[in-house]
Amino acid sequence: MRDFDENNITAAVIDRYQNTPDPRLKKIMTSLVQHLHDFVRDVELTEAEWTHAIDYLTRTGKLCTDKRQEFILLSDTLGVSMLVDAINHRFAEGATESTVMGPFYVQNPPEAAFGADIRGEAKGEPLYIDGSILSEDGKPVANAIVDVWHSDAEGFYDVQLPELEEPTLRARFHSDAQGRFRFWTIMPRYYPIPYDGTVGDMLKASARHPYRPAHVHFMIIAGGHETLVTHVFVDGDQYLDSDAVFAVKNSLIRDFTREAPGIAPDGKKIDTPWRKLQTNFVLSKVMAKKSAPAA
Amino acid sequence: MRDFDENNITAAVIDRYQNTPDPRLKKIMTSLVQHLHDFVRDVELTEAEWTHAIDYLTRTGKLCTDKRQEFILLSDTLGVSMLVDAINHRFAEGATESTVMGPFYVQNPPEAAFGADIRGEAKGEPLYIDGSILSEDGKPVANAIVDVWHSDAEGFYDVQLPELEEPTLRARFHSDAQGRFRFWTIMPRYYPIPYDGTVGDMLKASARHPYRPAHVHFMIIAGGHETLVTHVFVDGDQYLDSDAVFAVKNSLIRDFTREAPGIAPDGKKIDTPWRKLQTNFVLSKVMAKKSAPAA
Repeated sequence: MRDFDENNITAAVIDRYQNTPDPRLKKIMTSLVQHLHDFVRDVELTEAEWTHAIDYLTRTGKLCTDKRQEFILLSDTLGVSMLVDAINHRFAEGATESTVMGPFYVQNPPEAAFGADIRGEAKGEPLYIDGSILSEDGKPVANAIVDVWHSDAEGFYDVQLPELEEPTLRARFHSDAQGRFRFWTIMPRYYPIPYDGTVGDMLKASARHPYRPAHVHFMIIAGGHETLVTHVFVDGDQYLDSDAVFAVKNSLIRDFTREAPGIAPDGKKIDTPWRKLQTNFVLSKVMAKKSAPAA
Repeated sequence: MRDFDENNITAAVIDRYQNTPDPRLKKIMTSLVQHLHDFVRDVELTEAEWTHAIDYLTRTGKLCTDKRQEFILLSDTLGVSMLVDAINHRFAEGATESTVMGPFYVQNPPEAAFGADIRGEAKGEPLYIDGSILSEDGKPVANAIVDVWHSDAEGFYDVQLPELEEPTLRARFHSDAQGRFRFWTIMPRYYPIPYDGTVGDMLKASARHPYRPAHVHFMIIAGGHETLVTHVFVDGDQYLDSDAVFAVKNSLIRDFTREAPGIAPDGKKIDTPWRKLQTNFVLSKVMAKKSAPAA
């Protein structure tokens, strides 16, 4: 075919995918071309805007390193990550809701024992986390992998701090026979997503702020259950209603209670005020997914 | 707002752009979010597919250098470049049609005199190009900038050949008082777009070939007229009906005539068979654009 114009080119491009061996890839490319072309037609994209878009995508790719993933940030700030999360986690009624992974997870975090202190050199208000992993039928889930990561008291993750040599405020626990895990850390703080790059440029040009409310990330992996990637948010945070990545769910907000100096639940003597989070995570059994809700 | 699900998140993200100072950016971001989310919902993108897409975009960015622009190739092979071209070049009736710029244009090509030979060290069938620049009213356009670039006899552009130190098969001419330009070069060949990268991966997975039919690129800039970015295609090429970037228009195909050894039009004696292209370019006057055709 020849002589494509703005009306017939979309069908011609889609036709070029007709021999794609993998039917799933064929479906994805067909839909991608249709929606991408619809967008370009809808806004009548100018050549200067197209050039800007090419340059923007290129710069976004160049910013990515093993410590920073600007395309994930872009997906997060455009709400795409939360949309993918929602589509893929139609969990059983009563199961803990999922939310975005974010760009700061690190594969194979350091193993930590029941009751460990993962503060390292980080300074901040002590936080004792007392969690339990349950199955959707209420039974405890033993030996689940519980990966934890969160920001420091200034709002930074360890991977953003080049002077840190060891993973900090980041660990892998295993739930005990009663499904429990416990550890000491410090309170996380609200923080801006990295906004000195292309995503920051987009947020600034759109008069959007880059902040996320304070939270602790969890990824919980247990045999026979759907993997749960979620956060626990700190109640009262000023950014709960305007999270830059659209990840807040009411069911994930917890009271991080204020505790007086004295004896902590693990028998440790503590001289300063401290905080406590007591929370359950309820895992959906594999195959217990809800089907897609009606649009 | 909190508690976004797959149905309400799109409106929530769009709402976040309501204070965008530039109305054009607000329109673009609103449309982009709507179409991007519609695509994700349409295919019910899985997390593994999302991860693959993040990685694909990242690798595409990393491939870009000052000599290679993989995002332009991606735009070209998805038909987006031709769509943007069509939307932005609703030229006057009778004007030469535009087509894609492609990734091989280089700013400020070397100046060349009327009648110059731009072959450098390149070997191939000699080609004499005899062109004229006209305005839409048929009058010649003097002193137009005529940038020319094309592949060699193996299908490579100079920027793809690291051993070349000088620009080759690439020049800037100026039309004379009668609107004419003339030069010697060699016949271009059909060629694959670079397919050792992410765009090549996409083409292979989709059983699409990477070839473009043989052509010479022109960009023509003249006061009072719309800039024309176009190709002249070689009639008879086997890829005219399946150009990997959807750029062929029938009105841009020319007979590159086969000529016998003897005396060339510029008086030069030539001992081998050679080819001749005689062609006009008709420029649209500024402001003479057609409005958008009805869809």
